[in-house]
Amino acid sequence: MKLSELAQSLGLEHRGADLPLASVAPVEEAGLDQLSFVTAKKWLAQVEPIGAVVVPSDLADEPELADKPLLISRCPPLDAARAARLLGQAHLTFSGIHPTAVVAESAQIGAGVVIGAGAVIGAEVVVGDQTEIHAGTVIYDRCEIGSRCILKANSVIGGEGFGYEFMEGRLEPITHFGTVLIEDDVHVGSGTTIDRARFGETRIGAGTRIDNQVQIAHNVQIGRCCIIVSQVGIAGSCIIGDGAVLAGQAGLVPHTTVGAGARVGASTGVATDVPAGATWTGWWGQSHRESMMQLSAMRKLPAFMKTVRDFMKQKKE
Amino acid sequence: MKLSELAQSLGLEHRGADLPLASVAPVEEAGLDQLSFVTAKKWLAQVEPIGAVVVPSDLADEPELADKPLLISRCPPLDAARAARLLGQAHLTFSGIHPTAVVAESAQIGAGVVIGAGAVIGAEVVVGDQTEIHAGTVIYDRCEIGSRCILKANSVIGGEGFGYEFMEGRLEPITHFGTVLIEDDVHVGSGTTIDRARFGETRIGAGTRIDNQVQIAHNVQIGRCCIIVSQVGIAGSCIIGDGAVLAGQAGLVPHTTVGAGARVGASTGVATDVPAGATWTGWWGQSHRESMMQLSAMRKLPAFMKTVRDFMKQKKE
Amino acid sequence: MKLSELAQSLGLEHRGADLPLASVAPVEEAGLDQLSFVTAKKWLAQVEPIGAVVVPSDLADEPELADKPLLISRCPPLDAARAARLLGQAHLTFSGIHPTAVVAESAQIGAGVVIGAGAVIGAEVVVGDQTEIHAGTVIYDRCEIGSRCILKANSVIGGEGFGYEFMEGRLEPITHFGTVLIEDDVHVGSGTTIDRARFGETRIGAGTRIDNQVQIAHNVQIGRCCIIVSQVGIAGSCIIGDGAVLAGQAGLVPHTTVGAGARVGASTGVATDVPAGATWTGWWGQSHRESMMQLSAMRKLPAFMKTVRDFMKQKKE
Repeated sequence: MKLSELAQSLGLEHRGADLPLASVAPVEEAGLDQLSFVTAKKWLAQVEPIGAVVVPSDLADEPELADKPLLISRCPPLDAARAARLLGQAHLTFSGIHPTAVVAESAQIGAGVVIGAGAVIGAEVVVGDQTEIHAGTVIYDRCEIGSRCILKANSVIGGEGFGYEFMEGRLEPITHFGTVLIEDDVHVGSGTTIDRARFGETRIGAGTRIDNQVQIAHNVQIGRCCIIVSQVGIAGSCIIGDGAVLAGQAGLVPHTTVGAGARVGASTGVATDVPAGATWTGWWGQSHRESMMQLSAMRKLPAFMKTVRDFMKQKKE
Repeated sequence: MKLSELAQSLGLEHRGADLPLASVAPVEEAGLDQLSFVTAKKWLAQVEPIGAVVVPSDLADEPELADKPLLISRCPPLDAARAARLLGQAHLTFSGIHPTAVVAESAQIGAGVVIGAGAVIGAEVVVGDQTEIHAGTVIYDRCEIGSRCILKANSVIGGEGFGYEFMEGRLEPITHFGTVLIEDDVHVGSGTTIDRARFGETRIGAGTRIDNQVQIAHNVQIGRCCIIVSQVGIAGSCIIGDGAVLAGQAGLVPHTTVGAGARVGASTGVATDVPAGATWTGWWGQSHRESMMQLSAMRKLPAFMKTVRDFMKQKKE
Repeated sequence: MKLSELAQSLGLEHRGADLPLASVAPVEEAGLDQLSFVTAKKWLAQVEPIGAVVVPSDLADEPELADKPLLISRCPPLDAARAARLLGQAHLTFSGIHPTAVVAESAQIGAGVVIGAGAVIGAEVVVGDQTEIHAGTVIYDRCEIGSRCILKANSVIGGEGFGYEFMEGRLEPITHFGTVLIEDDVHVGSGTTIDRARFGETRIGAGTRIDNQVQIAHNVQIGRCCIIVSQVGIAGSCIIGDGAVLAGQAGLVPHTTVGAGARVGASTGVATDVPAGATWTGWWGQSHRESMMQLSAMRKLPAFMKTVRDFMKQKKE
């Protein structure tokens, strides 16, 4: 496909020569018949052997790009991905109902829904239009999944929550009568597990993105457009505000609240509420500024202790 | 169903008016035709709009409950859950053998066993009566599962342990000839993995509850009625005593012992044996008291260092 | 099977009496008709009731082994495992294509490949000879798996990477056009997830062993013969050198490099590059020596603070 055709399809400004492009590749690998993209000056040294480049407008006049065929974009990685799709680099898909699929007579399947091989969908589950349920994913009875969601392979939605009561020396399981509600445009990673509520709903807000192997316990309420990175664990009844970001392996104890727009660092343990907009880090989660001051102090501690002991010894003599 | 009928079915004392109830709901959501439960005084302010309430006997005479229809229970959450089941809020189930199920001619299936769609059960596996194996769960050959167990979706029982020996510069895998033995009344969470022993058995004691995404390595021995919360990792050959509690994301290095009744806090790293009955916390696990004292000291460390440096400077002048 | 036959089949030196052996068992359980193995002096006290023992040559002349039938081995655990296989303790296997398997007409299956029940293999996937893909494992389109690999149950290879760009207030997903390349002799644990690259390949080097529930993000490059223990999380674009060892629950932030032969301790957070050959530990990863010095200082900190405060008070008076 010619660069001018890509520009037209993507609605982007085209500068320089028009040439045919075979595919999209990253800047360090792309060659003469390929399109790549850059987002910062430091990558410009590598564009010389590349056919054409998607760039933001503030880089378009840099000397390294003189005579280089360009597409001008507000978000080069996104438009490069769109170009790759137009160039046929997308995933292959199957369409129709496979003869070995087991579908209840009473089941109704929405428009554009994709259900992968081996996925299991329980009774009275509702799945919105254009949602993809990948291979091996299990959705327990009565859960509700919005439109345009993606549930990646082997994720589990709606398992019984982990709730027990001690009763005459035994752990009696508490039945969880609630469900899971996943709103529109949510992505759920491979191997992620989201438990159903005791009553009511465990809720994942619209537009939230959840990575692989995340655990979300019963009755958790997650806001809109949150980012929850791999291996995060969110205990029962936590509340996560809109736009919050939880980095990899962070953990929340039950009933904690993370305010809207807050950021929780990687491997951070959250045992108290995180204020809206705050950045929280540390094994024992606290503000990032305090964590860094204490970490810096701790690193100097062995030498500091020696200095102080020497000083005290000298003063005592 | 009328409150008096629920009282009779559950064997509970009934006080106040008899009224028809549609369902069970949590105290903050329940309305006039619903049953809820409370376990502490702080919830009593919210019972006014609720039809009837399950309460412990020591709350039954509180003024907020005057004239309120009550069920008196030793464990209100449990009896509320039982009431919800009687009111038809339970999960739906399929009964029989689905025509697409693949069952070996030699297989014998016990009474009341439930096997979910896509579950895979290897050769010579034994499964006790009334055990549920949920969708997508895989049990490797020769493992033994007790009665009344629940293995939630996509869990994996009996995979080869992660054991290697260096041999002429290569990592040679060591075949694990042992199995996994899961005793009666054990629950295993979604996505949890339990590896088979090198010889003998990886053992999970009766009544133990294991949450989602827990990793239990080869040859681990877990006692009776333990609680193991989500994303805990237990390395090879660890021993966990009866009634121990491991909170979320805790990790144990190989060959450590956690004594009976001990409690290991969330995200705690256990590198040395934990005494019976102890509470252990900290990135580098130690007694909770020591952890808290050190944490408190660390938080004061930056200011303390400044004070001491100023003092030394002044004394030197 | 007689000990002399085992010796001949395994190519090992045989000393002492020749006796028939039923099976292999660990040293603390083995009896008169069984073979066991020892690798260190401390186990010799337990060999008395055992039929025969596999030992390294430097233990063969110890007094506890006088008159004991022996096999002399350079790697006793490995040869004991081989003996167990000869004695019929191996796993059972199914051979052929099950009538309910769904295989595309265009699919070609290599020699000795094992595909477990419920495993899902996408379009244009390449699987090398003698590779085992266990039950419930999902391989997305276009990934490449080498020869003699083992992918344990419910692992997921080639899911879309977790990459988003903010664009007009929305999180726009970035399509990942790359794949996953798993080289020869790699083991992947149950529930482990390995995401596909944005472009190019997420690569796992030959001979690397990966435990259960490990997360490997898009574009990660892992060298040859690495050991990656359970619940490790490796963020996008990290590079792991040949022979590196990452212990359980370690976590790496995006774009970090772990040098060849480096060792990262359990639960270590890696936020900066780890030099080749180094040992790195700590919540905030650093050299093990520094971590231990700081940990030791932190443990003394509460008492130290009191001593210094008393001293300052006294000097001020």
